[in-house]
Amino acid sequence: MLIKKDSDKGCALFNGKKIPAFSAASTKSQSLQKNEIIKFDKVFTNKQKGYNPSTGIFTVPIAGVYQFSSVVMSADGKYLVATLLLNDTIVSSVYIKGSTYQQGTLSMILDVQKGDQIDFLQWL
Amino acid sequence: MLIKKDSDKGCALFNGKKIPAFSAASTKSQSLQKNEIIKFDKVFTNKQKGYNPSTGIFTVPIAGVYQFSSVVMSADGKYLVATLLLNDTIVSSVYIKGSTYQQGTLSMILDVQKGDQIDFLQWL
Amino acid sequence: MLIKKDSDKGCALFNGKKIPAFSAASTKSQSLQKNEIIKFDKVFTNKQKGYNPSTGIFTVPIAGVYQFSSVVMSADGKYLVATLLLNDTIVSSVYIKGSTYQQGTLSMILDVQKGDQIDFLQWL
Repeated sequence: MLIKKDSDKGCALFNGKKIPAFSAASTKSQSLQKNEIIKFDKVFTNKQKGYNPSTGIFTVPIAGVYQFSSVVMSADGKYLVATLLLNDTIVSSVYIKGSTYQQGTLSMILDVQKGDQIDFLQWL
Repeated sequence: MLIKKDSDKGCALFNGKKIPAFSAASTKSQSLQKNEIIKFDKVFTNKQKGYNPSTGIFTVPIAGVYQFSSVVMSADGKYLVATLLLNDTIVSSVYIKGSTYQQGTLSMILDVQKGDQIDFLQWL
Repeated sequence: MLIKKDSDKGCALFNGKKIPAFSAASTKSQSLQKNEIIKFDKVFTNKQKGYNPSTGIFTVPIAGVYQFSSVVMSADGKYLVATLLLNDTIVSSVYIKGSTYQQGTLSMILDVQKGDQIDFLQWL
């Protein structure tokens, strides 16, 4: 009986009732100022409601190890530099210097505390 | 003793005996029709057997939050648009307009139910 | 009380005390020989200390299903081919033939055993 409980727990964890996770996309092209936060208006998933699409900031709901992935695309032949920030400190950037429309990917794993803030900035 | 059981459970979960996960790649270049499902013939991992390489469809074995990542490459200087579908509804796309061979990445997190079907389509 | 223990366990697992995870980046451009391991000197996260930045090798600390992601960028207009190896066997590659600086992404999920070694190689 107890082991059964245990097993339920495992499933509850996996079913995403406890694991924070979000995904969001931008439905239109954006012209941003330097240091402006990139907001992704269309939210697909937002378990534990860490992501706020109106500010573009993800606030860590539960301490732990998180993976952050982002895919961006430059305008035709333009530079695009976008930067992942953890509590206003630069962690990693994606740099695109395209001869055409061009994609860039950023992937990062961070060990963060409850309340930490992650956002994604237009750098140039 | 009971806590030990508990600990075993955690490891069993982590050992991937319960967590669905798959990865597959295409071993050759493909010329596809519009709306044709992209099949990845070489399967590296297929825990819980959600992915069917002969159809290219992933059928969700256990409800939960899943991450789907896909990397594709265009032919030299050609357009490539590929789209992730959840039960025949478009979720997200990757768009490549390359001056050379060019890669694009798609990354998505979805909260899905058992039996939901995910596939990846040639769009243009 | 026991269920509480159970719940603590779930959090401990999620808090990354048990889950191996690492992320690292190269802080400078590198000129590598063919078959040379790409070392990422700046380590952001290294739970369970699987990643060794001085060798560039990740040694699996606990058996399980792992996701490996890597983003690389070519020098201006140069070829770049980089390859993920599991115990010296090629698993997957990223190929870049850029007209400018260009990014490529590799993403792979592998079911690995304790002690398995993963590294990422300059191929050309």
